[in-house]
Amino acid sequence: MKSLLLVAHGSRRESSNDAVKQLVTKLRHQLAGSGFDEITHAFLELTTPSIEDGVSILVDAGSIDIVVMPYFLAPGIHVVDDLPELIDVARTTYPSVNFTVTPHLGEVDGMVSLILQSAGATA
Amino acid sequence: MKSLLLVAHGSRRESSNDAVKQLVTKLRHQLAGSGFDEITHAFLELTTPSIEDGVSILVDAGSIDIVVMPYFLAPGIHVVDDLPELIDVARTTYPSVNFTVTPHLGEVDGMVSLILQSAGATA
Repeated sequence: MKSLLLVAHGSRRESSNDAVKQLVTKLRHQLAGSGFDEITHAFLELTTPSIEDGVSILVDAGSIDIVVMPYFLAPGIHVVDDLPELIDVARTTYPSVNFTVTPHLGEVDGMVSLILQSAGATA
Repeated sequence: MKSLLLVAHGSRRESSNDAVKQLVTKLRHQLAGSGFDEITHAFLELTTPSIEDGVSILVDAGSIDIVVMPYFLAPGIHVVDDLPELIDVARTTYPSVNFTVTPHLGEVDGMVSLILQSAGATA
């Protein structure tokens, strides 16, 4: 079972955290054909679920492959240092689970096309 | 002439600001066929160019249509309040220029597909 863990920063504004939850709901509805069986979210700080919580949810559901996507636009210290450290802890906790961390969202292929298409469609 | 203004938050970390500039360079290389003739970036705070600067650059280059895309994942106060207010100021300054503000990046159509494709391709 392969799962996706979307990791956002977390905010004191509940509306920002809710936006992440709503995005994950949309993602869940489109999982068919994506190669993922399950998806959940986690926050680095300021709110829960934590990364530890998110990993635990996915492992308890039977995940043996977990792809972690940093839902960040900038390559800040959270993306460069904090997140990899927390995933290393998860690897130690669950040695039989395979963890993969993708590039952060701001650097994925397709971002350029998404911006141009979205901006062009709106105008 | 139609132009795109990508507005990011701005950071004290120069590497984060550089990532925005690098993204705009990539976007500039793919403008052909996008409907846009020019593109530049601006930052809401902490660094420059400001939105006023960015708009000025595009108007001086001959832009009469400027599409403003908030390069933000969360619908925070910057996206909801600050950015629209600054664009209203620009509308007053340049009454002959047509300004359009797109949804912020986190809510554009295609984000769900981008995440699933990117996560699936990496794993």
